Amino acid sequence: MIEPFDDTYFMKKALQEAEVAYEKGEIPVGAIVVVENRIIARGHNLTEQLVDVTAHAEMQAITSASNFLGGKYLQNCTMYVTLEPCQMCAGALYWSQISKIVYGARDKERGFINMNTKLHPKTEVVGGVLAGEASEILKRFFIQRRNLN
Amino acid sequence: MIEPFDDTYFMKKALQEAEVAYEKGEIPVGAIVVVENRIIARGHNLTEQLVDVTAHAEMQAITSASNFLGGKYLQNCTMYVTLEPCQMCAGALYWSQISKIVYGARDKERGFINMNTKLHPKTEVVGGVLAGEASEILKRFFIQRRNLN
Repeated sequence: MIEPFDDTYFMKKALQEAEVAYEKGEIPVGAIVVVENRIIARGHNLTEQLVDVTAHAEMQAITSASNFLGGKYLQNCTMYVTLEPCQMCAGALYWSQISKIVYGARDKERGFINMNTKLHPKTEVVGGVLAGEASEILKRFFIQRRNLN
Repeated sequence: MIEPFDDTYFMKKALQEAEVAYEKGEIPVGAIVVVENRIIARGHNLTEQLVDVTAHAEMQAITSASNFLGGKYLQNCTMYVTLEPCQMCAGALYWSQISKIVYGARDKERGFINMNTKLHPKTEVVGGVLAGEASEILKRFFIQRRNLN
């Protein structure tokens, strides 16, 4: 049997969120939260529009998922995020006790791996899903922004 | 000349925010943001009321300060927070490029020092201001909560 709902399928949905951020002039990062193959929350980076450094895609998606679930813990949830989470977002995911994080591109400088941020011991991590696509949209954004200046 | 606006003065204001959290049944942590001896933002922990693990006092205060300033960077700002920030909040403060963080009680387990979270290189840190008062309200909260169960 073919399983249509795999990590690639859901990462494409997160990439769609990154495209929405791109269109708004935001650093294009997108995130979704999935429970039993159902998307319960979507988020994209809104730091410029909201004038708020805390408005990363993951933070929006965590808040939105908790709102949907009516509970602040995201056990049995998977987050798909196009870029490896930063210290802040990994710290938020730690508190959420999320079951699984699937990220696209590595952030070798400011990502949680290099920064040594601790996730919850119950959280599984998968990296590199559609990493090329996730990097490409970020590169496209920074090239465009450089050309505008 | 007596300087009325010292770290103790502002930490008392942060403790007042912690008391507001206490009255709401939240883990009592409070934070304020100060620019040139003026309080521009206040926040207290609201994780239960907002059903959201991201709703720490510091996060509320960062968002509120950016809103007041009309800019997302908190250069020239000082945050007074009753408890040493966690990974998430320290990560948010990293992005904010805040000038100074003054905290009350240490959080030896989940605080950013033990967790090794990186702050912005320009951020100065002072710890232990009214640490006794900040610890006392937390102890009072957990004793009361234990007695209710």
